[in-house]
Amino acid sequence: MPNTYNGTKLKVFSLNSNPELAQEIVEALGTELGKCTVKQFSDGEIQINIEESVRGCDVFIIQSTSEPVNQSIMELLIMIDALKRASVKEINVVIPYYGYARQDRKAQPREPITAKLIANLIQKAGANRVISLDLHAPQTQGFFNIPVDPLLAMPILAEYFCAKEYENDVVVVAPDHASVTRARELADRLKAPIAIIDKRGPRDIGSREVNIVGNVEGKTAILVDDIIDTAYRIATATKAVVENGAKEVYACCTHPVLSERAIEVIQDSALKELVVTNSIPLTEEKRIDKITQLSIAQLMGDAISRVYEQKSVSVLFK
Amino acid sequence: MPNTYNGTKLKVFSLNSNPELAQEIVEALGTELGKCTVKQFSDGEIQINIEESVRGCDVFIIQSTSEPVNQSIMELLIMIDALKRASVKEINVVIPYYGYARQDRKAQPREPITAKLIANLIQKAGANRVISLDLHAPQTQGFFNIPVDPLLAMPILAEYFCAKEYENDVVVVAPDHASVTRARELADRLKAPIAIIDKRGPRDIGSREVNIVGNVEGKTAILVDDIIDTAYRIATATKAVVENGAKEVYACCTHPVLSERAIEVIQDSALKELVVTNSIPLTEEKRIDKITQLSIAQLMGDAISRVYEQKSVSVLFK
Amino acid sequence: MPNTYNGTKLKVFSLNSNPELAQEIVEALGTELGKCTVKQFSDGEIQINIEESVRGCDVFIIQSTSEPVNQSIMELLIMIDALKRASVKEINVVIPYYGYARQDRKAQPREPITAKLIANLIQKAGANRVISLDLHAPQTQGFFNIPVDPLLAMPILAEYFCAKEYENDVVVVAPDHASVTRARELADRLKAPIAIIDKRGPRDIGSREVNIVGNVEGKTAILVDDIIDTAYRIATATKAVVENGAKEVYACCTHPVLSERAIEVIQDSALKELVVTNSIPLTEEKRIDKITQLSIAQLMGDAISRVYEQKSVSVLFK
Amino acid sequence: MPNTYNGTKLKVFSLNSNPELAQEIVEALGTELGKCTVKQFSDGEIQINIEESVRGCDVFIIQSTSEPVNQSIMELLIMIDALKRASVKEINVVIPYYGYARQDRKAQPREPITAKLIANLIQKAGANRVISLDLHAPQTQGFFNIPVDPLLAMPILAEYFCAKEYENDVVVVAPDHASVTRARELADRLKAPIAIIDKRGPRDIGSREVNIVGNVEGKTAILVDDIIDTAYRIATATKAVVENGAKEVYACCTHPVLSERAIEVIQDSALKELVVTNSIPLTEEKRIDKITQLSIAQLMGDAISRVYEQKSVSVLFK
Amino acid sequence: MPNTYNGTKLKVFSLNSNPELAQEIVEALGTELGKCTVKQFSDGEIQINIEESVRGCDVFIIQSTSEPVNQSIMELLIMIDALKRASVKEINVVIPYYGYARQDRKAQPREPITAKLIANLIQKAGANRVISLDLHAPQTQGFFNIPVDPLLAMPILAEYFCAKEYENDVVVVAPDHASVTRARELADRLKAPIAIIDKRGPRDIGSREVNIVGNVEGKTAILVDDIIDTAYRIATATKAVVENGAKEVYACCTHPVLSERAIEVIQDSALKELVVTNSIPLTEEKRIDKITQLSIAQLMGDAISRVYEQKSVSVLFK
Amino acid sequence: MPNTYNGTKLKVFSLNSNPELAQEIVEALGTELGKCTVKQFSDGEIQINIEESVRGCDVFIIQSTSEPVNQSIMELLIMIDALKRASVKEINVVIPYYGYARQDRKAQPREPITAKLIANLIQKAGANRVISLDLHAPQTQGFFNIPVDPLLAMPILAEYFCAKEYENDVVVVAPDHASVTRARELADRLKAPIAIIDKRGPRDIGSREVNIVGNVEGKTAILVDDIIDTAYRIATATKAVVENGAKEVYACCTHPVLSERAIEVIQDSALKELVVTNSIPLTEEKRIDKITQLSIAQLMGDAISRVYEQKSVSVLFK
Repeated sequence: MPNTYNGTKLKVFSLNSNPELAQEIVEALGTELGKCTVKQFSDGEIQINIEESVRGCDVFIIQSTSEPVNQSIMELLIMIDALKRASVKEINVVIPYYGYARQDRKAQPREPITAKLIANLIQKAGANRVISLDLHAPQTQGFFNIPVDPLLAMPILAEYFCAKEYENDVVVVAPDHASVTRARELADRLKAPIAIIDKRGPRDIGSREVNIVGNVEGKTAILVDDIIDTAYRIATATKAVVENGAKEVYACCTHPVLSERAIEVIQDSALKELVVTNSIPLTEEKRIDKITQLSIAQLMGDAISRVYEQKSVSVLFK
Repeated sequence: MPNTYNGTKLKVFSLNSNPELAQEIVEALGTELGKCTVKQFSDGEIQINIEESVRGCDVFIIQSTSEPVNQSIMELLIMIDALKRASVKEINVVIPYYGYARQDRKAQPREPITAKLIANLIQKAGANRVISLDLHAPQTQGFFNIPVDPLLAMPILAEYFCAKEYENDVVVVAPDHASVTRARELADRLKAPIAIIDKRGPRDIGSREVNIVGNVEGKTAILVDDIIDTAYRIATATKAVVENGAKEVYACCTHPVLSERAIEVIQDSALKELVVTNSIPLTEEKRIDKITQLSIAQLMGDAISRVYEQKSVSVLFK
Repeated sequence: MPNTYNGTKLKVFSLNSNPELAQEIVEALGTELGKCTVKQFSDGEIQINIEESVRGCDVFIIQSTSEPVNQSIMELLIMIDALKRASVKEINVVIPYYGYARQDRKAQPREPITAKLIANLIQKAGANRVISLDLHAPQTQGFFNIPVDPLLAMPILAEYFCAKEYENDVVVVAPDHASVTRARELADRLKAPIAIIDKRGPRDIGSREVNIVGNVEGKTAILVDDIIDTAYRIATATKAVVENGAKEVYACCTHPVLSERAIEVIQDSALKELVVTNSIPLTEEKRIDKITQLSIAQLMGDAISRVYEQKSVSVLFK
Repeated sequence: MPNTYNGTKLKVFSLNSNPELAQEIVEALGTELGKCTVKQFSDGEIQINIEESVRGCDVFIIQSTSEPVNQSIMELLIMIDALKRASVKEINVVIPYYGYARQDRKAQPREPITAKLIANLIQKAGANRVISLDLHAPQTQGFFNIPVDPLLAMPILAEYFCAKEYENDVVVVAPDHASVTRARELADRLKAPIAIIDKRGPRDIGSREVNIVGNVEGKTAILVDDIIDTAYRIATATKAVVENGAKEVYACCTHPVLSERAIEVIQDSALKELVVTNSIPLTEEKRIDKITQLSIAQLMGDAISRVYEQKSVSVLFK
Repeated sequence: MPNTYNGTKLKVFSLNSNPELAQEIVEALGTELGKCTVKQFSDGEIQINIEESVRGCDVFIIQSTSEPVNQSIMELLIMIDALKRASVKEINVVIPYYGYARQDRKAQPREPITAKLIANLIQKAGANRVISLDLHAPQTQGFFNIPVDPLLAMPILAEYFCAKEYENDVVVVAPDHASVTRARELADRLKAPIAIIDKRGPRDIGSREVNIVGNVEGKTAILVDDIIDTAYRIATATKAVVENGAKEVYACCTHPVLSERAIEVIQDSALKELVVTNSIPLTEEKRIDKITQLSIAQLMGDAISRVYEQKSVSVLFK
Repeated sequence: MPNTYNGTKLKVFSLNSNPELAQEIVEALGTELGKCTVKQFSDGEIQINIEESVRGCDVFIIQSTSEPVNQSIMELLIMIDALKRASVKEINVVIPYYGYARQDRKAQPREPITAKLIANLIQKAGANRVISLDLHAPQTQGFFNIPVDPLLAMPILAEYFCAKEYENDVVVVAPDHASVTRARELADRLKAPIAIIDKRGPRDIGSREVNIVGNVEGKTAILVDDIIDTAYRIATATKAVVENGAKEVYACCTHPVLSERAIEVIQDSALKELVVTNSIPLTEEKRIDKITQLSIAQLMGDAISRVYEQKSVSVLFK
């Protein structure tokens, strides 16, 4: 591994949400993580010690704001404050998974828009740039006044499925109405048709009618979403797809939140494989055979080195 | 018409984009438009004279930022500046059609996010609240730090179609992937299934393959979109729906931008009727038989009176 | 209980850190808590539903930013965002215990000033006023640009000790150098002398030499601090005071953080009684006989009613 | 032409108001214009594509905010937004003619101060520096918190008149009270006396009495203004000067707005020559024999290269 | 004197620059000054004690930022801070004389624009509105983003001269090029012609040639300026006017700064009378017979009551 | 003296509060002061001329905001404005003595927090970093959002006392409750015990009872404070210490404000020596034999060179 960035003004720090990814990223960059300690006092307050000089440096902080989400956010904000007061040159925040991204509008009266609030807090704390991956809504970029470099996991996921050879024709299935654009993107790369899980009826009543628009019969169905959280939606979709004659069902997503009983739900479903990235780390009990985790470290590392060297990042959006 | 708000601190001003709607709104409120002149000097600069005292008033400005879009935006910003400097209490901006709403993210490298820029400009000029209608992406609410009351035209449009009796079964058709959620909302109100126009292949190549996912054969198809601009997409969708066996095709949208050759395209299409609102005024040559225009004045008036009287606006979101 | 504020524009909401205190406060005010639900989704994200209209209201949010501190802060910020977007008139934040207050300066190089960061976040989210109690450093008021009403628990604590009759002369003891001013304030109210626990030597070496400056022999010693966290300092001080001849030892503080093994440490010490307020709730296992909890509800309620009615709050500072 | 700045981090972009001037400026700099497309969609919305990487660059945007003024301003703001989000290092805005400059104070009650509003918008969009030429009021510099480099056309205009030899004594005439300082500046360079067109009586009544203060009899009169818009004032002044015995009349200004019937008015007047700069381009029909256009390209280019190279710009103010 | 505003939420406070004017203003309003003490500690730091509750009040602070100018500005800023933190509703700053107003642009390279800086400081401290009188440049209004009500002393000054009967024809004389507009305004009210003192040659060389443009011979000349500071300019103008045949010379200005040897210079000049307002107080030694001081208290009081009662202030601009 | 920084982009400017210290600092740096003139016009307004190009430079301004405090602050703010508008790269403000530091909280109702106000003004004017020395409360760092490098005079003062040899045992005495932490720091360096002057009773009544907590009998007492202003406190403490049997009394402080009759009070006291730094200059009449002034120039110079060269400053905090 070439020791590329040691001795330069580039410093990469990891907080506590995803240290393995951070380590992979600096290895991809040919450097090492900056030295800092991020702990909690006994009363739960976060304590940050940056253990090397950062004055005048271009700093990149790597932190998914994943569970424990509120603590991850506070760690990030406090680290930004510490770096700002330590006279760094630029604070670049690398957020592979942006928590609260789904609270991006008032769906009900008197709701917060927490995704915007977080954007405001990150900017107020002092960040100069955000690098993120598959924001739930691309409009979230516009919640920021600072530059956002929005990376995409789709090439990584598509490459994985392209490399496979399925016996049957493939259909890409959107598990709800909001995912149709994403399904079409994957389908284009696989040269496949799409289908949509179409739930009808009022949202607040439990048992909505589940239909499929489009044809899945006899096919290999690949479900695609950006986030899989409780996995109920993907399980419902899998069931519907199977009932409508699909031969086998795969699924993929960028961000494996996998909260609550998600692992159990996936195990119990007819899903053959769930492909995810390491934007959120999988705890030991989540590392089941059905789940394949692809690394975004090279992508993130390339983004960091291009930003640091002031080269165009757009080549990474393809 | 009861003379409800004369003599109170509520003042409603119209700028130049949609004076007929503004007049209808104040009639719904039982008051009159505030006196002001908004003209252009011979060099094109906007000149605003507010011809009555507004000190301490709750002012509502009615202005769709529709064509001429740049002038409409500048009129709005300059009016806000004038009111702010004239010591009004609150500046409420009523924007039935929010121009540039589709430029809400960086779809390509080095693109602006103009919808966010406009939000920043409106806030910097001094607005205190925005009332809008069917923002292209609901996330646009989050571009603002001030309160946004997001009204919906769907009840008005759905009521119109519900009142009709069609011989055939109805299917609601999304003209592209991004409209599927909106199609499902109308379909729920009409208790109908949905179908999707599914264009495949690279976006930048003209002739993308057009498929329909879902079944339209023998049905009355209703296409639904938020904005109809050049009308090419709605015409392509109409053609596809007819080719796939639909008996008749209707369409609706909230915002009739209808630029370029749109009227001609609609006339030449198989569309039987296009239902729109008056969020954007139709010029004389756009008022063709095929187009039905429904009024949002009562909805807007209700929103204004509820905001002024500090009652909950959420009842209007249903 | 008179039903004083029902039907007015005053609304008090409680978040999750201290609901009992919130309930006591609204009872003191003769009103009820506003209806809202503050829960966590299964992935840990906070979900807030405000279940009554708040448009145009003067809202008071009651939330100590105590453990779980990061979640308490995020609840507060998200609630402020929701209220701001719901068009309330004023957002008053009542923070009986202000978490992170001790991180109020760079004690080491490259440290954050988290107490200031939190102040910035609260203001950025949209708060209009802060009501707090015994801020660790009074300078923390200056971290805000909005008004801060800084209430004091000293009168409540002093009144409790004044009502007692001790057999021996009383001496008020400061458990470290930073508490001397506070010790003098209590001593003035008890007409007593003071003594100081004087630790010598480098801070980072465990075993600093502990001396007492001043005379405690044969006296009833009352230790006073603003926050008792791990209780190691108060236990060390108790031990030193007893070794120097004090007859009995009491202690008091405003904020009972009591983290880690604090309860055990207190139980094992020679302390006869620890008097605290309910700025932070005591969990069941912390409610031991040695601890007496005094209520600040009346003080907080008076502050809220005076702020709402635009009367001077300074009478409460005495 | 030396290829001075190619390959450096200096990039100059032109928008649509004055592309010929922009081209002349980059030629003076020995470089080329940055590649970007600035068009309008069919509904009038501006579309900007920056077609080369600008990350880390010092960018200069050249745009007079001249007619169509509102579109020119919006082009500028959107371009700034795009560059900011594309991570440029510095955004320098070169505005040879600053539109709305005359709306720089409340002359009537409830007027906007649009010149300040525009300054706020430019800063909010993200500009870092403004380079302008002969701002209508020099106080407009103070509307900005960012640095403004205020260039002067007077040396260029004065040099032109100095090079001429007139048979008669020269008098410099201010066409209204506000232009006297400017007249004195030109007069000092020509070593000439001044005279003032003195209109009396209420401003809002059409026929104000026109007098001349000072002596023009038998002289060559040179009228001087910063902006010539409708040309009525300059024509009135010419008439008055001739009636008071001047032998011949010339005029000059920095910014040839020339709106409405200005060309006709000039043609019909006794003016022998009108000297202007190319801060605003002259359309074909405005390029009449009586009008001489002097170039500011070298001045602008010098300012850009000095700013880029961090040399003092003040040498250009002489 | 009717006791109009006692018991309301209107409070008027005076700082130290012009207490007599403040007293006159509250008498015109029929109320009393708010109680506060504004002193200096022995080390020169300003100490402010507001001695009555101001919570929820509309406060007006009266303070000319006249000599000692830096202390007057700091008093004003500190008072604003104190009021803001004391939870007043609105902070209205009444600045009859706005110090540093002449430093309103970069006349030389690397100069500050102090008039703008002061505007920024006043807004940052927390002011909500400014009421001022005859700002040196009207563009200074635009230095603020908050409302500015710009009052005019011209009606008061003109009324005084109109009431006089002069034996000779009157000519209004501008003492420099920048004052011509002001001279014309007074001349219009007196139905008189104007003349201009026209200094030629480079500014930085002491002995510039002094001419008069226009005719003063045999007339009563009235010199008009906004500020008279060292009085050298007005004395030079007086001398020039007399040498050109004027029969008698009067002068007026709004703001009598009268620094350095100004009184002596005026005494030694041929001026018969200098008419000023009390925007700046005259110390005992400045109260010479030649100087007549007119009061602006009624004008200021009217402005305050109209702002407080939310009536149009524009009637006072006539 | 090596000519280290001439020709680089580092420029150091001195304003009027402490030119001798500024000169010493640049000598320590091996460079010269930047050329600028900072004067007052005859009306008291500050006039600043920066007489060399500063475009793109890292500028350090040296100014204690000591008496005349308001003028010193205004000089600083105006200089920052001038530099910002002159396109410098970074504005670093070196404030050895930070005036108004003691007004850092609301001690009484309706008080300003002037120390925070000043921090806001400095940031609003455009400063990028502050270097200060022994801020009265370390929390004042948190009044800033920009980096603050807080230097300490304690090593310089302690070194002076360590070098002496006293006949008696040494005790470090805190002259009031707020100074105990500082006393302990000096005592640790001298390996000495501490004592505290303990004033009892209500603050607003003149004659508070003065006790000493701790033992001073037969010892050499060293009083330590951060600021000595009127010197009454230090004199009272000296008297008390002597009455309690101290053999001799010394005192030290960082900032010798020495206002009012301070010199006389010190002369009349039993103090043998007062050791201070040159953060504030001593006027001729303050340079009495009893006062020893130590220089902070080397410390300040080291901080400036480390900031400019982006080296860690923390080594200077020891």
